[in-house]
Amino acid sequence: MTENAAPFTQQERDAVYRAIAERRDMRHFRSEPIRDDQLKRLLNAAHQAPSVGLMQPWRIIRITNRSLRNEIHTLVEQERIATAKAMNEREDEFMRLKVEGINDCAEIFIMCLADKREQHIFGRRTMPEMDLASVSCAIQNMWLAARVEGLGMGWVSIFDPKELGSLLHLPDDASPIAILCLGHVDAFYPEPMLQMENWRQAEALETVMFENQWDSPSNL
Amino acid sequence: MTENAAPFTQQERDAVYRAIAERRDMRHFRSEPIRDDQLKRLLNAAHQAPSVGLMQPWRIIRITNRSLRNEIHTLVEQERIATAKAMNEREDEFMRLKVEGINDCAEIFIMCLADKREQHIFGRRTMPEMDLASVSCAIQNMWLAARVEGLGMGWVSIFDPKELGSLLHLPDDASPIAILCLGHVDAFYPEPMLQMENWRQAEALETVMFENQWDSPSNL
Repeated sequence: MTENAAPFTQQERDAVYRAIAERRDMRHFRSEPIRDDQLKRLLNAAHQAPSVGLMQPWRIIRITNRSLRNEIHTLVEQERIATAKAMNEREDEFMRLKVEGINDCAEIFIMCLADKREQHIFGRRTMPEMDLASVSCAIQNMWLAARVEGLGMGWVSIFDPKELGSLLHLPDDASPIAILCLGHVDAFYPEPMLQMENWRQAEALETVMFENQWDSPSNL
Repeated sequence: MTENAAPFTQQERDAVYRAIAERRDMRHFRSEPIRDDQLKRLLNAAHQAPSVGLMQPWRIIRITNRSLRNEIHTLVEQERIATAKAMNEREDEFMRLKVEGINDCAEIFIMCLADKREQHIFGRRTMPEMDLASVSCAIQNMWLAARVEGLGMGWVSIFDPKELGSLLHLPDDASPIAILCLGHVDAFYPEPMLQMENWRQAEALETVMFENQWDSPSNL
C-alpha cells in the first residue's frame, strides 16, 4: 500500500513529548522581529494539519499594518471589559489578569474559518462544526512549532467575531476564530499562567477518563 | 518571572516537524493490542493541551466492551450511508472509500465535550465554541504522540452525536465529537489518503494566506 518510514527514535519521541509538555499560552512578549524562515516553518506546520474531508478550512491573515493592529487591540479591550462584567464576583480579579500581548508581540495572525464551507459534507453532515476542529488542529501544530523555535504564541479569543470579521473584510460565511500573538519571550511559563495566577487549577487526567460509559471509572 | 528551559536542539526541532509532516488520518489497522504505557503517554499528551480559561473541557471514554464497539460501528455505518446519499453525484465514489477502521483497530476512544460548560465565560462569552477548539488541540496532541509511538490514529466524525451520546449515557449538556481509532499499522500513508484516492487534492499554503484583509495576497 505505502512505503514505510523509519520508526521514530527514542530521542525523537522525547522531543515531541517535550514540546507538548512545555508549550504555553503566552501573554508576555518581547517585540524584536521574527525571521521569515521561522514564520514560514510555523505556517507550513499549521497547513499540514488534518482536516475533515481534506477541506483545509483555515484562512490565515497576517497583520502587518500597525494601525489595524491597534484597532484589533481596541476590539479585544472592549470584550475584555464585557467579559469581566459577566464574571460578576470575579470581575476585578479577571481585570487584573494579563489576557493578551497584542501590542508587544512581533507578529499577529488571525486564524479564520473559510467561506463556502457548506459544500463540504464529508464528516460534517451531522457535525458541521468539524471545520472549527480542523482549524484548531492547525493552530496546535503552529503552537508546537513555535515552541521548538523558542517562540511564544498566545491564542486570544476575547473579541466579537462579527466586529473583527468586518474589520478584516471577511465574507459573511467566513469567521475569525483566533487572534494569534507570536513573538520572542524572556521565558516560557513553567506551568499554565492561569494556574500560576491562581485563577484555576488544572484537573488530573484521571478525572476526565471514563470506560464504556459516562462517569464509569477507567481501569487504565 | 519563570525559570528558563534550555532551547530545543536542531534534532529536537526536526523531530517535531517530522511528526507533524508524517502524521496521517489512518483507516487501516492491525488488531494486536497497544501497551498500557503507550496508551498512558498518549492520553497524557492529550491532557497537556491548551484550553480556553484552563477549563479542560475534554472527557475521554475508552471503549473496552466489544458489543458496545459493534453498536458504535452500526451508528457510523448508518451515517455513512446518509452522508453518501447527501453527496448526490459522488455517492458511489464516497461509498467506495474506506472512512473508518473501527472493527480492526486495537482501541477506541470517544472524545467528548464536558457537561456544565456554560459556567466558563473566559474566552467564550462571544465564542462558546472555543471549548470544541480546546478538545481539538487535545486530539492533535494525541495524534502526534501516536505517530511518534508508531501507532496510527483516525478521527471518525461520521455519526449522529445525539445517538452516540445516548449510547454512552452522556448528560444532555455533554456531546461526543470524535470516535478515535487507534492501533498498529502496516504502514503510514505517504500522503493524505483522500488525496491518494483522488477524492480531493490539497491546496498550497499560498492559497490560504492573506495580509491585513481577506483576499489581499501575503508577501511572506
